[in-house]
Amino acid sequence: MNFLYSLDLLGTAAFAASGAMAAIRREMDLFGVLMLGLVTACGGGTLRDLLLGDTPPFIFKDETYLYLSVAVALLVFIFRHHLEFLHHPLPFFDAVGLGTFVVIGTGKALEFKLGLFGSVMMGVMTATAGGMIRDLLSAQVPMVLQREVYASACLAGGTLLYLLHRYTNIPHAWSLLAAALLVIIMRLLAIRYNWALPRANDFYRD
Amino acid sequence: MNFLYSLDLLGTAAFAASGAMAAIRREMDLFGVLMLGLVTACGGGTLRDLLLGDTPPFIFKDETYLYLSVAVALLVFIFRHHLEFLHHPLPFFDAVGLGTFVVIGTGKALEFKLGLFGSVMMGVMTATAGGMIRDLLSAQVPMVLQREVYASACLAGGTLLYLLHRYTNIPHAWSLLAAALLVIIMRLLAIRYNWALPRANDFYRD
Amino acid sequence: MNFLYSLDLLGTAAFAASGAMAAIRREMDLFGVLMLGLVTACGGGTLRDLLLGDTPPFIFKDETYLYLSVAVALLVFIFRHHLEFLHHPLPFFDAVGLGTFVVIGTGKALEFKLGLFGSVMMGVMTATAGGMIRDLLSAQVPMVLQREVYASACLAGGTLLYLLHRYTNIPHAWSLLAAALLVIIMRLLAIRYNWALPRANDFYRD
Repeated sequence: MNFLYSLDLLGTAAFAASGAMAAIRREMDLFGVLMLGLVTACGGGTLRDLLLGDTPPFIFKDETYLYLSVAVALLVFIFRHHLEFLHHPLPFFDAVGLGTFVVIGTGKALEFKLGLFGSVMMGVMTATAGGMIRDLLSAQVPMVLQREVYASACLAGGTLLYLLHRYTNIPHAWSLLAAALLVIIMRLLAIRYNWALPRANDFYRD
Repeated sequence: MNFLYSLDLLGTAAFAASGAMAAIRREMDLFGVLMLGLVTACGGGTLRDLLLGDTPPFIFKDETYLYLSVAVALLVFIFRHHLEFLHHPLPFFDAVGLGTFVVIGTGKALEFKLGLFGSVMMGVMTATAGGMIRDLLSAQVPMVLQREVYASACLAGGTLLYLLHRYTNIPHAWSLLAAALLVIIMRLLAIRYNWALPRANDFYRD
Repeated sequence: MNFLYSLDLLGTAAFAASGAMAAIRREMDLFGVLMLGLVTACGGGTLRDLLLGDTPPFIFKDETYLYLSVAVALLVFIFRHHLEFLHHPLPFFDAVGLGTFVVIGTGKALEFKLGLFGSVMMGVMTATAGGMIRDLLSAQVPMVLQREVYASACLAGGTLLYLLHRYTNIPHAWSLLAAALLVIIMRLLAIRYNWALPRANDFYRD
């Protein structure tokens, strides 16, 4: 599954860049920037493997993810005054990473025979926990808990993959692709049209 | 042990409600409310199972806990302007959950042959870690570190269970019941009489 | 390896004291002080063991660490108005703990056959994750992400140990000692001469 692995690395790089940028915004030092890049890119999958009991986690079995994350974070740090060119493509790469991480997480949970809720949760966690740890380490309320159709896109993709896997005969590769595409498209539409979930303080719409 | 399981579900529901309310107070969106309900209710037991090496954690073996937590959080979100009726019973249910979670956690640690400190710690963690994660995700100093006889009640209950289990012949079910009751009663008395632990800044009492 | 064990306990005590002091500064109650002492001293090694899949973690196999941490935190709480005598020696003990924790963490990762990045990361994590959890529980951006040559000293020591172990025939005990000394000396020099890593906002030096 070389295509999935390529998408996985692309997503890892995009997540590492977003982590490094958050660290720069918080005026952390070089170590903080590398570290936030690392946990944002690799934290979700690591937590998933911990919960599945598959230790040591994937990052220690294929260190490519670690080196890639740190290299990207280092580049972001070095060129931190010249990152405007990233503003347009980054949300796109981020969406690709989101879709890829969801199907990898839910797919792995299916191998471990988890139920519907557990499998979808593993997909969502793989895709969003890295960003949540990033926000915690920046002493902020995690962005994913407050804004936009981010986790919902992951939920939809994970659920689709579970249902296709359990109730159809579609080849696994096609199921993965369909679920990843659903996440990516929902996420890009949400950015484009500024979709949002209802909030507890939506006074005017209550 | 159907009675214990019923109390466990009651406690799970109470913890999920308190998590959902915290999310609403922080103006999170629907996903944030569901997610905070989930981690508050299930986070402590999940962390315990991770530390005991019993993976995947209990929530993935019996998804009832997951569905119940999300259902309660959803109800809290929907009826968020009409929750006054919960103000009186919630602390009571919360205390029941606290006592139940402590004895389940310490009891499981005893099965894994942990020592006194480890067993009591597992009980306290099962009961309080969910709330700590809830507070972390809300970017607040965890309530349990600052206020009232909350963790102390758990410590007392866990210690009692360990001692009864190791040094007496009392049937396990009775030990569980006695320890849970100790937690619940201490907690309710602490609320009623506003008990507090000494603090580092108690100038007037130094 | 009794000498290493003694250093380990010394480091545990120093870390517990720093955790307890942070809790006192945040005006937590007695439980919060004990708890922050405990997680600061034992959190890094616990996380390492979780990631290596070596459960239950070391603290549950030898409860000395738990009792020592809580005892130190309790002493700090009791004598909280008379801690000036700790101001000078504490950074020194802290540096000793840092060096010891790094070589214990990297050494254990080598036993588990992790690669270069993974092994060094385990050393850094063993030494710094406890302090990061301490800062998270105090709702602060972790100190290690912002200040001084702290993690860098750990990186250097972990890398030295890995290289000595893999590419030389030096006896393991000497490698451990050399790597630990490197961390301790770098850390003490960093304090003495106020070394710092470049930060993202170093405008005047860009």
